[in-house]
Formats: sequence, C-alpha cells, structure tokens
Amino acid sequence: MTSKQANLEAKRIVGIAAAGEVEDGMAVGLGTGSTANYAIIRIGERIREEEIAVVGVPTSYQSAIRARAAGIRVADLADYPELDLTIDGADQVDAAFNVIKGGGAAHTREKCVADASTRILIVVDVTKVADRLHMPVPVEVVPYAATGVARHVGRLGGDAVIREGVKKDGPVITDNGNFILDCAFGTIEDPENLETSLNTIPGVLTSGLFTEYAEKMTVMVGGDGSYRILTRSDRVPSR
Amino acid sequence: MTSKQANLEAKRIVGIAAAGEVEDGMAVGLGTGSTANYAIIRIGERIREEEIAVVGVPTSYQSAIRARAAGIRVADLADYPELDLTIDGADQVDAAFNVIKGGGAAHTREKCVADASTRILIVVDVTKVADRLHMPVPVEVVPYAATGVARHVGRLGGDAVIREGVKKDGPVITDNGNFILDCAFGTIEDPENLETSLNTIPGVLTSGLFTEYAEKMTVMVGGDGSYRILTRSDRVPSR
Amino acid sequence: MTSKQANLEAKRIVGIAAAGEVEDGMAVGLGTGSTANYAIIRIGERIREEEIAVVGVPTSYQSAIRARAAGIRVADLADYPELDLTIDGADQVDAAFNVIKGGGAAHTREKCVADASTRILIVVDVTKVADRLHMPVPVEVVPYAATGVARHVGRLGGDAVIREGVKKDGPVITDNGNFILDCAFGTIEDPENLETSLNTIPGVLTSGLFTEYAEKMTVMVGGDGSYRILTRSDRVPSR
Amino acid sequence: MTSKQANLEAKRIVGIAAAGEVEDGMAVGLGTGSTANYAIIRIGERIREEEIAVVGVPTSYQSAIRARAAGIRVADLADYPELDLTIDGADQVDAAFNVIKGGGAAHTREKCVADASTRILIVVDVTKVADRLHMPVPVEVVPYAATGVARHVGRLGGDAVIREGVKKDGPVITDNGNFILDCAFGTIEDPENLETSLNTIPGVLTSGLFTEYAEKMTVMVGGDGSYRILTRSDRVPSR
Repeated sequence: MTSKQANLEAKRIVGIAAAGEVEDGMAVGLGTGSTANYAIIRIGERIREEEIAVVGVPTSYQSAIRARAAGIRVADLADYPELDLTIDGADQVDAAFNVIKGGGAAHTREKCVADASTRILIVVDVTKVADRLHMPVPVEVVPYAATGVARHVGRLGGDAVIREGVKKDGPVITDNGNFILDCAFGTIEDPENLETSLNTIPGVLTSGLFTEYAEKMTVMVGGDGSYRILTRSDRVPSR
Repeated sequence: MTSKQANLEAKRIVGIAAAGEVEDGMAVGLGTGSTANYAIIRIGERIREEEIAVVGVPTSYQSAIRARAAGIRVADLADYPELDLTIDGADQVDAAFNVIKGGGAAHTREKCVADASTRILIVVDVTKVADRLHMPVPVEVVPYAATGVARHVGRLGGDAVIREGVKKDGPVITDNGNFILDCAFGTIEDPENLETSLNTIPGVLTSGLFTEYAEKMTVMVGGDGSYRILTRSDRVPSR
Repeated sequence: MTSKQANLEAKRIVGIAAAGEVEDGMAVGLGTGSTANYAIIRIGERIREEEIAVVGVPTSYQSAIRARAAGIRVADLADYPELDLTIDGADQVDAAFNVIKGGGAAHTREKCVADASTRILIVVDVTKVADRLHMPVPVEVVPYAATGVARHVGRLGGDAVIREGVKKDGPVITDNGNFILDCAFGTIEDPENLETSLNTIPGVLTSGLFTEYAEKMTVMVGGDGSYRILTRSDRVPSR
Repeated sequence: MTSKQANLEAKRIVGIAAAGEVEDGMAVGLGTGSTANYAIIRIGERIREEEIAVVGVPTSYQSAIRARAAGIRVADLADYPELDLTIDGADQVDAAFNVIKGGGAAHTREKCVADASTRILIVVDVTKVADRLHMPVPVEVVPYAATGVARHVGRLGGDAVIREGVKKDGPVITDNGNFILDCAFGTIEDPENLETSLNTIPGVLTSGLFTEYAEKMTVMVGGDGSYRILTRSDRVPSR
C-alpha cells in the first residue's frame, strides 16, 4: 500500500467510525472534505440499514450535494439552530485541541455549525496531528478588503497569499463569494489570541483557527488500519 | 424651515465643509449616504473649478455611482491601499468618538476605508451626537449564520432583528451579499469590548461599531446654518 | 373599508383559496410577497389541522423564513426537482397569461420554481389584471453589466432605471447578489419576443417576463370579498 | 522543446502580438487566462516604454490583479461603456468565428466586455482552432438552479456536469458567486441557436458560446514561433 493509499484508508476508517456515533433522531452537522465524506456515506447507509431518522446540516455546497447523494435529509441551520453532533475534518490539530481548518475553503460555515453543536467529532489521519499548530491559517475575506487584510496580517507577523484556483482562473471564490488568504505565521504561539486578532481586522469574515471548542471536541485519528481517540493536553507544550 | 429641511441643510453644510479639506493629489475614501453625498458633489465641483487631481475610493455601489456622476475618478482599495482622507457620515457619535454606522448597510467597506485612511472626517447633523451610544448596532452577517448570530447577540444582552427590505421582499441584502442584523443593546457601556465580542461570533463579517479610529477622526457637526468641530472627551461620561 | 384594506383583503382571500389546492404529499413551490404569504400561512395551518405532509420549496430568503415560521418543512429544488404545484403572486397578468413579476426582486428563483412545477397558481388582486402588459419589467443583472444592459434595453425601446433600496443605501441587491433594472417599455407588444431579447443581453440573469408557462397556469383573482378564476384568451387583444 | 513548452511559447508570441495593436488613448478590455496575461504584461511594458496612456477594463479578479501588477490603470465598464479593443483568449474557435470560452470561469464578464468593444482580438494557440465547435460549453448558473438547468441541458441533447474545484472543496464558484456547468453536446451543429436556447433556461446567467461577435473579431493563432491571422469562412463546413 502506498503512502497515499494508506492515507485514504485512514480517512475512510475514521470517517466510518465517526458515523457510528450518530444516533436515531439526531440533527448532525456535516463537514466538508474527503474524511467527512466517508462519514456522510456511512450515515446514509446506516439510515437505510437501521432505519434511523437523521437530519444533516451541510457546511458547503459540497456536503449538501454529497448528503443528498447519500440519502440524508438535508436541512438548514435556521431549521436546527442546535445540533447534537458535528463530524468534520481538520487540516491540523494541536495537543490542546486547537484546530486549523479551511483547506477546502469551507471553514466559515464549518465554524457556524461547530458553534451550534453540543459535541464535535474531528476526524483526521495521523499526518494532521501536531504538538503545536504551524500550518498557514486560511482566512476568508471580502474581495474589497484583500489588500488591507494582507497588510494587517503582516503586522501580526504573518505572510498572506491569496489562494489561486485551479479549474478557475484567478482567486478561489468561497461558497460565500469571498477570497481565501492563506496566512503563514510559522509556529503559532498563542492560537486563541491570534484568532481574536484576525477576527478584528476589517473585512475578515472568519479565520480557519478554531480555539473555542476544545471542551466539546473529540479527536479521532485514523492510521495503520484502525483509529484512536486523542487525549487532550491541558496546554500545548512549551518550546 | 421644517425640521426635515433644517436637517438636510445641516447635512449639506457639513458635507460641503468636509469637501473643503480635500487637497490636490489626494486619494480620498468616499463614504455612503446622504451627507457623504453632499461632499462627493462638492469634490466633483472643486475638481472642475480648481483643476485639482483627486481619486475617490468608493465604499459602496452607491458612492461609486455618485462619484462617477460627480466627475470624480474612481479607484479601488487595491489601487490605493493608503488613503489620505476619508469623508463619511455616521448614525451616532459619542463623546469619545466611538461611532455607530451601518444604517445604509455599507459599514463593512466603510470600515475598510476608514482603516486605510490617515485621517477621517465624520460628517453629521446635530441629531447624531450623543453622550453615550444607544442606537441599535447594525451587524453584517452571512445569511447561513443569521440564526446563530442572533442567539449570540442575545447572550451579549442584545436583541437582534433581521433588517427587512422595502423595494425588495425579505431581508435587505448588502453589496457583499449578506444580511444586516440590527442589534439593540440599549445604552452601550463598553463599545470597544462589544465590538470585539461581535467580531468573534461565527458568521459575523463586520459590526457597525467603530471604536478604533478616534485618534485620527475629526467630527464635523452641522446645524443652524453652520457647523462646528466636536471636541473629543478622553472618555465617555459615566452614568 | 379603505382601498388599501380592500386590497389586502383581496390578497388574503385569494391566498387562502390557493392554499386549498395543496394536497397531502405534495412538494409545493412557495412564492414571495404579500399574497403568497397568505397562502404560506394557510398551508401551515392545514398541515397542523389536517395532518397532511407538505414540503415547501421557497423562492427567496423571505419565503423560507415565513415557511419556517408557518411550520412548513423547507427543502431545496435540488431535493425536489419536480414540484406538484407553485403558488405565487404577480405584478401584472395579461389576457393570455403572460406575467410580469419581480416587484419583490425574487423573480429569478420564482421562474426556476415555476419552470419545475406541474401546475402554477398565480394569485393576484384585481388591480394586477390587464389586457396587455404595460408595467416596467424588472430585470436581474450582474452589477458589472448594469451600464451595458441599460444601453441594450434602450436599443430595444425601453428605459432602464437601477432600482434603489430604501433601508439600504444605493441599489437594491437581490438574494443572488445582483441589481434590478426596472425597464419601462410602455405597452408590450410581443412579450415572448421581448423575454428572449432580454435573456440574450450579456450580464442579464433573468427578466421578470414569464411567457412560457401559460398552459400550466391558473390565475386566481381576489376582490370584493371573493375570488374568481380568470379565463385565458388565446391571444392578447390587438389594439 | 516539449509540447507544453511550445504551447506556452505560442501563447506568449500571440499575446505579445495582440498587445502591439493597442494604441495611445485606448480603453482596452482585458481578458482572463494565460494568453491574455501575456498581452497584459506587454501592454504594461509599452505604457512605460512608449509613455502611452491606456486604461484597462478587467474581466475578472485575476485580470484586475495582473493589470495592476503590470502597471496598467484599471477602470470599470461603468467608467468606459465603450471600449476600443478587447484582447482575450478562447477555448475553441471555429471556422466562422464562433467561440467557446469559460474554461477559466470568467466568460460572463468577458462577454460583457466583448459586447462593449469596437474590436475583439481573440488570441489562441493552434490547438484551439477547429472546423466545428465540439468542446463542452461552460454555462454559468445560479446555484439554486443547477439541478433544473442540468435537466434542460439534457433536453437539448447535452450532458451537464458541475465543475469541481481543486483548491476548494465542492463546486467551483465564479467571481459572480455562481456555479459552472460544463455541458457536453458533442459537435455543435448550430451554435447560434444553442446559445439562445441556453440563455432562455431559467437560472442561466451566461453560456460560454459567443456567436454574435464574429464580424468585429480578429483571431490570432500562435504556433511554431510565429502567429497568423485566421481567415474567417462565411459558414462552418457541413459535415
């Protein structure tokens, strides 16, 4: 098995495991991306096999399309302002359960759904786990503000690059009509503080830093044909 | 002269006075709304009369349309990331120069432009000046998040109402494609803290509270056929 | 009863009558505006009173919000690509059942839903019925194209005005993020041809002319405490 | 030189040649994509070298960013409703100068600019020239309408697929906030008729078929270290 195959297999295993946490009658936030999609497919199977009633609240056009394809009834946050559970991937998770999301440009709606959920399952393969966050932070900004936000990010010690599309010329546009700035800060010393700083820049909609939800979060890590539940440290290790 | 006529006359006087601050070679942020529009018209006249070169950076479709009609060359924040001056109205200004904006649903771009400016002229009629802010705060939110944001606003002690359109059925949609929640908090005890709290709610783009720019702000107040420059207090009066 | 009260009463009567056409198990397109809203409220009542199962597909943020408030389960066109029935208002209906819509800026989604429906109930008060269409035609355009579309409309013999907001400065923005041009053509000689001409202008999303759906359309006209079913002429009267 | 290098070299040569057609005082529509970008860079050089005054009207966020980087003054169609020249790429050109565009998801604004131009230079490498159009036609649609439009395309004999993003999960979103449906029709017998048919589907903003502009179009084809001007046939060859 190649490394890429192993990675896909890890995502599949952990996605399926997370789908096992869904119970009859639940309203479930449906994350975006490849790992969340394995969970979506499995929830659909369980709805048919076990005849459970589950409503899914998608976090993107992608997860809405996939939920429909999987046979999950789709609803809106306005229909279910409180969700029992959200299953979502992540780009990086640290030891204290601070998370970077937004590689798929869907983190604004993902944060809304996480915020509305009683419990959050973060499903990742082992490559996403790190002692401290060091990936670039995706920040969703209105196009009008891109230049100004990039300057603010610079003042915060970061380096902001507009994410470019691949099957679309020019900047990636989010489901909300905005740009993504990928903001490299190196190792992030104080994620909570950085999240607040990013939020207060004019023209920023949402950063991909999730630092508020560690207490209701379970992190499931796939790898080597199985998965494990990550134990949360009280704090990230000092350097 | 009726009260409404007097009000319009106050706006006109202060708008024209602000336009007098524009100098040859400046890049100027152009606010949105009736008072800012008097400034826009007058800047256009000065460009023709005095042959000065001025570039305007609009804060809305409205101010772009009006600037073109006035003969001002229009550019983008990406062209002029640093502005010499911004002229803009406000819905309420307190004694310490905290400001509420967003009655015209344009406050996100207005905040970006204010942020990019060396100097800000706030042009208001006398009815907008208050010791302490007590108007509802307009908050721009992605439609997906409206229900969740309203709940957060409730936890902050406010009451959020989706602003309804008049010549459009249903919610007002902003130039950025979002909703406006008008959030009534009564008298606002700590505007700076409230601005930060609103910014950190998932799905909030920008609140209409401007608390960061008092030091570079001049407040010009029209009324009774003339205008005056407001003196800033170090702090808002305690109750 | 004043004229305005009579008008509201006519809308209420015809909206309620249309709701009576909904049957158990139907997927129903829910129009936007005051008349459609009376139908939405009544459908909600019938769901509770008669325990019928009805799914509503809204045509706007407004009708989604109102359907939820009325207790109707809301779904998407992607969930129900074929609808049994749509109930919607109109700004003007001619003798051959050509319709002008878009006074509420919701006509793009309304046309999608009408197109997907087996049967369309148009609910209007008597002031909306005319031998020939002569109201301005609302046309939804991307903001980038507004100037160019206005010129094309001029070449077609019309006069285009950007619709201005009331509780929002500058142009009305639709739920899709676009402008509305209200295009006055006087009496419209050939609605079908005009609809095609408008559709082919670059930057036009949808015109408010509906000329394709007469055969599946029932027009219900409220007035004088009751309603009547309008009889369709084969053709509009010649002048 | 590999085939890919030869292709890039062809794009570069023809882009530079097109930039040579720009004259002092012109307002120029700036297309989107790799070939148009070579023209943009060269126009910027000419502005500096020859001190000519040129204003560029971009057709996308991408071409606006690139024009600024190249030192071209950027304006809006509202500033210049009539353009002297547009330089743009294409995905396929037939013998009668019908064109398919939209590979970069920018064809709506590109069509607006083409429409506003006195003269259009289409710059392509030789692989884009065909006797008859047979590439899938990109169609920009509002997300709400995607399912319904796909059904209509099926009735027209086509096969519609939602374009998926690469550095964004789920559908590509255009600069206007919409989806792209790539619609395969095989060889297109009657491009003009198909363009009209696509335009009249509810929820369609713009198709990537350009059939109206052949008379004002010059097609410049790069390859083998030089370029040639394509001669237009009166009609596409019959099969």
